[in-house]
Amino acid sequence: MTETGTRLDDATEAQLADVRYTADGLVPAIVQDEAGDVLMMAWMTAETLRLTLVEGRTVFWSRSRQEVWRKGETSGEVQWVRSAFYDCDGDTLLFVVDQDGAGACHTGEHSCFHRRFGA
Amino acid sequence: MTETGTRLDDATEAQLADVRYTADGLVPAIVQDEAGDVLMMAWMTAETLRLTLVEGRTVFWSRSRQEVWRKGETSGEVQWVRSAFYDCDGDTLLFVVDQDGAGACHTGEHSCFHRRFGA
Repeated sequence: MTETGTRLDDATEAQLADVRYTADGLVPAIVQDEAGDVLMMAWMTAETLRLTLVEGRTVFWSRSRQEVWRKGETSGEVQWVRSAFYDCDGDTLLFVVDQDGAGACHTGEHSCFHRRFGA
Repeated sequence: MTETGTRLDDATEAQLADVRYTADGLVPAIVQDEAGDVLMMAWMTAETLRLTLVEGRTVFWSRSRQEVWRKGETSGEVQWVRSAFYDCDGDTLLFVVDQDGAGACHTGEHSCFHRRFGA
């Protein structure tokens, strides 16, 4: 990998303290690319949020495997973080990324939201 | 209101059956506008998903008030649905909308994600 993410470790403790987690210690994280396509939604812990900001790539918490999940670590489909936001309630995160590889979805699609309601 | 949403009530029962809900009967719903800005994330039940598709405007479930929440009913900041998607796992929804009024956020901001991590 030649590309790297933007290190956002200038996020302040006050900003991080504004993030609210579920009883399980999780917060939903929306990922979109710079073109505006929403790629996926996954979950972070306080630890994986910090890892994401420091490493400049998305790091989630896998609820099924109950472990830290560095997106693309095995598939190569890394998401390099360009900017990161939190919402008015502090209970949802948004990351704008450069998506490496074919896409964000394990099906090979660019976006996990490739199924549309309706005809 | 002169504008109306796109009725998506041609969503099939098979599509609706692909949606997976939490133990509380909820599914996260991401809302973005046609320019690609992610506006907010809120929660839907199976009932409010159907209402959203039939009425062509976003209808959520308010977890704090424990009631159906027609976005913009009191504020006028209605979200007219242009297209609707569900993800590969069926556990997250995505709506592309035309946002009426000042914006999606109760603060008056266009997007709820107006706070950025970092300096």
